Formats: sequence, structure tokens, C-alpha cells
Amino acid sequence: MRNDLDGYLSRCRDSVFPHIRAYLEKRTAQLPRSMKTCVADYPYRRGKALRPALIMLFNDAYGGASAAAGRVAATYQLLEDWGLGRDDILDNALLRRGKPALHRLYGIPRAVNALDMLHDCVCDMLYSYCGLSPRRYKTVQAIFSEATSVTLGGQHLDIEARDLPLEQFTDRAYLRIAERKTAFYTVTAPCLLGAELAGAGSDTGAIREFGRALGTAYQIIDDVLDAENDGKGRFGKAPGNDILEGKRTLLAAAAFRRMAGAEKRRLAAFYALPPEKRSPERAAELRREMLASGAPAGCRAKAGKLTAAALRIFEARIYPSMKGPCRDMIRELTLKLADRRF
Amino acid sequence: MRNDLDGYLSRCRDSVFPHIRAYLEKRTAQLPRSMKTCVADYPYRRGKALRPALIMLFNDAYGGASAAAGRVAATYQLLEDWGLGRDDILDNALLRRGKPALHRLYGIPRAVNALDMLHDCVCDMLYSYCGLSPRRYKTVQAIFSEATSVTLGGQHLDIEARDLPLEQFTDRAYLRIAERKTAFYTVTAPCLLGAELAGAGSDTGAIREFGRALGTAYQIIDDVLDAENDGKGRFGKAPGNDILEGKRTLLAAAAFRRMAGAEKRRLAAFYALPPEKRSPERAAELRREMLASGAPAGCRAKAGKLTAAALRIFEARIYPSMKGPCRDMIRELTLKLADRRF
Repeated sequence: MRNDLDGYLSRCRDSVFPHIRAYLEKRTAQLPRSMKTCVADYPYRRGKALRPALIMLFNDAYGGASAAAGRVAATYQLLEDWGLGRDDILDNALLRRGKPALHRLYGIPRAVNALDMLHDCVCDMLYSYCGLSPRRYKTVQAIFSEATSVTLGGQHLDIEARDLPLEQFTDRAYLRIAERKTAFYTVTAPCLLGAELAGAGSDTGAIREFGRALGTAYQIIDDVLDAENDGKGRFGKAPGNDILEGKRTLLAAAAFRRMAGAEKRRLAAFYALPPEKRSPERAAELRREMLASGAPAGCRAKAGKLTAAALRIFEARIYPSMKGPCRDMIRELTLKLADRRF
Repeated sequence: MRNDLDGYLSRCRDSVFPHIRAYLEKRTAQLPRSMKTCVADYPYRRGKALRPALIMLFNDAYGGASAAAGRVAATYQLLEDWGLGRDDILDNALLRRGKPALHRLYGIPRAVNALDMLHDCVCDMLYSYCGLSPRRYKTVQAIFSEATSVTLGGQHLDIEARDLPLEQFTDRAYLRIAERKTAFYTVTAPCLLGAELAGAGSDTGAIREFGRALGTAYQIIDDVLDAENDGKGRFGKAPGNDILEGKRTLLAAAAFRRMAGAEKRRLAAFYALPPEKRSPERAAELRREMLASGAPAGCRAKAGKLTAAALRIFEARIYPSMKGPCRDMIRELTLKLADRRF
């Protein structure tokens, strides 16, 4: 059997959506029709299903059965769809997966209401759809619950950081936010779920370190790509939205450190403005200056170090307990993720 | 044993909060400190615990054991605290339980984030804190899940109704919203939970009819009291907020029908304005005109009929299968609720 990561990812993605559709159709059957459409909007846009793929790869590599893992993976994708919707409202995003963001299609009140419904679906789907034994449900539910706490805790720190002057926003503050807001739910929790579903609870500590390093690298590169996005990219997002929204990123902190004089003062002043006073034109200028500052290369170097650390942990402490071609695919996916070729 | 409803309600309220505190302290232990405060803010303001009281009264009246019911009742109170927080943001409320609304204390992004956490707490507390057997958990979880779907469905209809001209907003549309948005989660679901926890699943149909009638009466009176509130009341809410927010209520529909000429046109025009164009001064004038129109008496008559229907259902189809003093307390509470002396 050849190491065909792309085929695996594509099969995984295809296997996730029928579960989501089957669950949502039943759960939303009694809802007002226009609400049903809003609840199912992001799920039916079909994400890349990265997190489900991590669940299934870890489950397979630890020798787990795939039926329950597929259902849990689909539930986790719903958690992601909910999270994206709420992020998009908070960040006032324009686009998601190449289409207008949910709140721009339905207005904020309907979107918030539908997202609360979607959040409830995650909890109910895990229990009523996944068919887990009580013992398995207990460990899986605990990981979902931890993922939500950690991520929302990180989101809170991210919101607080937006009140900080850029000169006080340290790399350390950024890493603390990225670990909580992104790394845990993007990498750590899916890998833990795959391992637990396969009954391999012993590598937990190593998986947590692996996920923290790789997931943080992923967020750093995500932020860089947001700034580099010229609107023609493949991400289906509007260009430079992070800058317009004044998001405190490693890129912004690094650019600030590299700049001097009037340029530096302009950057700090823009980030200190209240959201409604930040103009897209000014954000576009700053985007060019930040890219020209050399900050992206610095961020990529930091992400590269984190990815190398993740790989070392994987090779030494996770790979040896795994079997079959999936463990090699995980190595490959780690590299793909780290430079966002996924 | 005397029929001491007030003592029962007060003991019930006192029994709910230690559970909430015990759960929240554990679940929020790892969250950023300022987020913990925000998550626990509404729960620690201590509501009246009406819904927990209905759970416990029905459980007791059907002869159930009270330990698990107390924990489920506390979880249900958390569901209510979450619901109030999201309603307050949607309605841009000023006050809740006599203090500034959550989003006015913390800003909308932090409040939304903390409320998402609280929503997750409901799901997790029901599973990890209530200690239900797998069989009991299944029925209880299904009622919580139904309560969320029905309520959010009603909320969606309520949001849609705000786009309707007042002349097109019928009593029937109002009742459809009130049944879904309020009656199910305020009365029906708590009574069903109490019955199920006591193993009395056979009166389900009657409980659903009872809850629909009583819960709708409750919402009608709630809307009337919102208009009658002069700011000195006991509800801890700002006066006339529904009118300012253009909420489509039975009172607004009835007032519109009773008015004529310029007064009628002014009312319709105000409700057709976008939210940011409705002035508090204008809302205060309309409030006086609506009260003077005689609409409150009409609404009270409708609520009275619904309460009478609820009582008939209770006497004929629920009371006979119950035992002990709690069944008489339920009758008394029904009357108390219907004119909001609770």
C-alpha cells in the first residue's frame, strides 16, 4: 500500500459530509425553513476537513476501528464550522470559503442565533449520533469539552490583547494566545481524539507537545498568509482582514520591532484606533509596509523552528508506537500543514 | 405537612446555587481570570430559579428522588442564564436582575465569548456533573436538546417578525413565537424533566399542552409588564425596552388595532424604523399611548383564558397521577406564574 496522503485526505473529506448532512437534516427538521439554511450554511460549504483528517490518521495509525472515528471526525468538523462562524462575526470578516461570511448573508442576529444552534448540534451529535460506548463517550466528551474551554479562553485573551498598544504586545503574549486559541483545537485535540478512539491513551503527553508546537506554527503562517493575501489566493478570505481588524499577530509585533521613525509610529497609531476608525485604504498601505519590513521571513523562521520541534517529538515519542502507512502520512501532513500547503 | 409553596421555592432556589458554583469553579479553573468573572456573572446574580422549581415540583409530585433532580435543575438554571445573556445582547438590554446587562459591563466580544462558554457548560454539566444513569441521561439529554432547538427556532421567528410592518403582525404569529421562544423552555421542558426524572413518562402529552398554555400566558404578561414598568418595579429591567427595541408583542398588535388616525400611524411608523433611529423619548410617548389604548386589559384577558385552559388540563390529566402536597403547590404556582407574582 503506497503512502498516498492526498488520496487519504480526499477520502476522509468525502466521508465526513454525509454524516454531517444526515445529522443536520434530522436535528433541524422542525426548525423554521430560513433558519435551517442558515444553520447548515457553513457546514455545507465543506471545509478542507483538516481536523477530521488528523482524527482519522491518528486513529488509523494507532490501529483503531474507523466507523466511530468517522462519526466523531464529522462532529469535530461541525465544531470547526461553528468556530469559524463566530470568528467571522468577531473579526467582521467579509468572506469564508470563497463566499460572503455568514453574518453578511443573514445579518448578525440570525447568524448568531443559527450559530448557537450549531454549537448545540456539536454536543448533541457527539452523544446521539456517534454511537460511542459509555466508557469511550466519557473520554471523547472530555476532550471536546477541553477543546472548547481552551479555545474560548484563548479567544478571550485575543480580545483583551486588542486593547494593548502594539509596543506592549510581546511574542510571548502572542504565543500564549495562539497555543490556546488555535493549536489545541486544530492539532492537539484531533490527535488526542484519534489516539483515544484507538484506545491508545499512553502517548498523551507527547501528543500535547506535538500539537502545541505544530498548531502554533500553523497560526503564525496563517497570520502571515492573511497579510500576503492579495485577494487572488486560494483561501477564500478577503485580503489583509487581520490588519484592518487590528488583530495582534506575531507579524504585527515583528513588523513593529523592525520599523523605525514615522513608519513605526503610523503602525502603532493604526493599531490603537477603535475598529470603526480603521480605513481599508490605510490598512492596505500598512500591509505593504509590513510585508516590506522583512517581518514575514522572521515569522516563517519561528514557525520553521516550531515545526522542526514538532517533528522531533513525533519521531521520538509518537511514531514508534504507531503502525502502518498512516504514520508516514502524519509526518508528511505535518510538513504540509506547517507551510500551509493544505 | 402544610402546603407551603413559598418555603418550597426558597429552599429550591437555595439548593440550586451551590451546584452551579461547584460546577463552574471546576470547569472555569483554567480560564483567564477576567473571563471567569464574565462567565459566572449572570449565574452568580442568582435568578428566581423558576424553572428549577418546576423541575423539582414535578419530580417530587411524581414521587421521584430529589438528588439527581436538584443537579439537573441547577443545570437548567445555567441554560436560563445563558439564554438571558444572549437575549440581552440581541435586545440591547440595559439591565438584568437590577444590574447592568452583561455586554454593557464587558463589551460585546467578551460577553459573546463568555456566553458561548456558558452554553458549553450546560451540555457538559448535564453529562459530567449530574450523575445520571445512561438510560436516564438519554431521556434528559433529549429534552434539553429539544428545548434548545425549539427556543432558538422561536428566536429566529422573533427576529424575522421585526421586519414585519405592525399591521401584518397577527396574534397568531405572536402566539407561534411565544410558544416556541418562551413556553417550551420556561414551562414545558422543566415539567417534562421533572416527570422523566421521576420515571413518569406517561403524562407527556398533557404536560406539553399544559406548558404551552401556561408558558404563553406567562410571555403575554411579561410583555405587558415590560410596557407597564416605570423603572421602579421589581423586575430589575429597564422600562419599556421592548418598545424601544421594536419587539413585536401581542400588546403592540392589540394597541395598533385599538388605535386610530394619527396615533395609529405614529405607532406603525415607529415600529418600521431601523433600531438606531428609534429614540427613547418617542418610545416613552408610545408606551403611554399603548397603555392608554386599553390593550393591556385585552392581553390580560387572553392570558387569563390560557391560564384557565392550563389549569383544566392540569386538574383533569396531570394532578390525578400525582401525589402529596407538591401537586397542590403546582396548582398554586400556576396561578402565581400566570399573573407574574413570581
